[in-house]
Amino acid sequence: MSISTFKHIAVVGAGAVGSFYGAMLARAGHKVTLIGRPAHVQATKRDGLKLDLASASATEIVYIDASSDLSSLQSADLVLFCVKSTDSASVARQMAPHLAPHALIMSLQNGVENSALIAQQVPHAVIPCVVYVATEMPAPGCVKHHGRGDLVMGTMQTSRLQDSQQTLQEIVKLFGSAQVPVQISKNVMAELWSKLLINCAFNAISGLAQIQYEKLAALESVRSTQTALVKEVIAVALADGIHLSESVALEAVAKIALTMGSQKSSTAQDMARSKPSEIDHLNGFIVRRGQALGVATPVNQALFSLVKLVESTYTHHG
Amino acid sequence: MSISTFKHIAVVGAGAVGSFYGAMLARAGHKVTLIGRPAHVQATKRDGLKLDLASASATEIVYIDASSDLSSLQSADLVLFCVKSTDSASVARQMAPHLAPHALIMSLQNGVENSALIAQQVPHAVIPCVVYVATEMPAPGCVKHHGRGDLVMGTMQTSRLQDSQQTLQEIVKLFGSAQVPVQISKNVMAELWSKLLINCAFNAISGLAQIQYEKLAALESVRSTQTALVKEVIAVALADGIHLSESVALEAVAKIALTMGSQKSSTAQDMARSKPSEIDHLNGFIVRRGQALGVATPVNQALFSLVKLVESTYTHHG
Repeated sequence: MSISTFKHIAVVGAGAVGSFYGAMLARAGHKVTLIGRPAHVQATKRDGLKLDLASASATEIVYIDASSDLSSLQSADLVLFCVKSTDSASVARQMAPHLAPHALIMSLQNGVENSALIAQQVPHAVIPCVVYVATEMPAPGCVKHHGRGDLVMGTMQTSRLQDSQQTLQEIVKLFGSAQVPVQISKNVMAELWSKLLINCAFNAISGLAQIQYEKLAALESVRSTQTALVKEVIAVALADGIHLSESVALEAVAKIALTMGSQKSSTAQDMARSKPSEIDHLNGFIVRRGQALGVATPVNQALFSLVKLVESTYTHHG
Repeated sequence: MSISTFKHIAVVGAGAVGSFYGAMLARAGHKVTLIGRPAHVQATKRDGLKLDLASASATEIVYIDASSDLSSLQSADLVLFCVKSTDSASVARQMAPHLAPHALIMSLQNGVENSALIAQQVPHAVIPCVVYVATEMPAPGCVKHHGRGDLVMGTMQTSRLQDSQQTLQEIVKLFGSAQVPVQISKNVMAELWSKLLINCAFNAISGLAQIQYEKLAALESVRSTQTALVKEVIAVALADGIHLSESVALEAVAKIALTMGSQKSSTAQDMARSKPSEIDHLNGFIVRRGQALGVATPVNQALFSLVKLVESTYTHHG
């Protein structure tokens, strides 16, 4: 397998994250198709994708193929799977009949379940990735990049990848050619859990109080609650066979408050727009997994139930 | 001591609760002075107190003395102390030099600390009361009564009351003459804890989601969180020498959701107006008392910290 093997890259679920990576690959000369919602697809086909690199104070127009039809991924060698965790199983099921037999799927999603959910629906190899990027979609056809963009990837515990090290290296080269750093991890599940842990410590709190990370971390009682959340996540991870260090985790939480101080969580953004959030796959996942493994998770349960309670008041679904 | 001993009754902190009881006593012919905020005092002196008995679909004007000066309680035999828990210590301290030596103080407040806080500031007898009433103050000079109105009272563990049973009976008669049922409890602290427990299970959740009790109780995950809150409160109470039954408590929580379904908590009302709530004396008290007694209270801590976080975003104080 060589770079030229990835002749066609499809992004399934081209929102803020998927469109960003698709655009980065397209502007480096790769053939990319964004598959997403009709409004975004139409704007992108008509005007090109507006890529606002806020960190570089530069905006580019990237001309890129777009479609709202999953049959457009028939010729794809590589699929960047970027739908919300809530939709993983159903979109993977719809995608299955259109996939080329040799296609590789990269899951660029939050949560630790997605690769397994996808692999239940398709016979293809799935590569779990941890995404470290801050992006948003201010309007259809527009992606705004706020920071980072690096990926960490690895193989699933029971991987269908043949020549896995070679394939992962090809992916590193592909993204490298588009200035996207990709790191290979021998324990990508622990990396996904570490990111989940951060999301469990920040997303619901930021959402319920509609507050940025730095203000959130300014209150000692909130930091105590974050510590309680982290301890519960670590206990569930351990029962699930993943060892995470508490001191490393608490340091990471403290660092996020400093380095991403002005951010609100994706959950906060969803709640501000009365859109269903990914909470079922963040604190909600910890609660479910804790129940299955016999680990008490009362604090994750409290935050999960509060977000669900707020979501139960929405009169429409975005 | 006879009823005629209570020749003058002063209400300190005449908000929705205090003005209601003051008005009930005044309309029964007792001499009452409301001591409260200037706007409420001026409206009451000018137009009388508008008492809206929503449950009886009737509105009455009650002519009643009012003042914003604590020196007006100099001739009071009985003081209904109705300030927010947050202000108990400071108002009791300001009240001390004006109190007649024989005056009795009834604490008509939420939380379990208030009688002790008042007794630290004055040498007088303090009678802890549990207040079961739904009232609001839609405007200065107006009190709206939604339901109930009964009181439960008793003596503090180290009581300064002489002839306590006789005095309590006199108070029962006084309020009885005003159609306010008052019950004497041999364990009023357990009654106060039981009410605190209900407040801990509902107030913060109702406030954070801005939702009525019935909708709140419709979600199973919220009910799980309420159960976790109740268990923590019971554990703290036990460490504090108060035995509360878990099954009775959970039944009471379930009943509130049914009987007070359309209500939002006082915390929800405060949060909707960006006013500081009593959370420090509800879930916040459980956290502090738990810390002092070595009882873990992570779920009360989580809700407490979220309400404090929301309050930290207020730009003004009501």
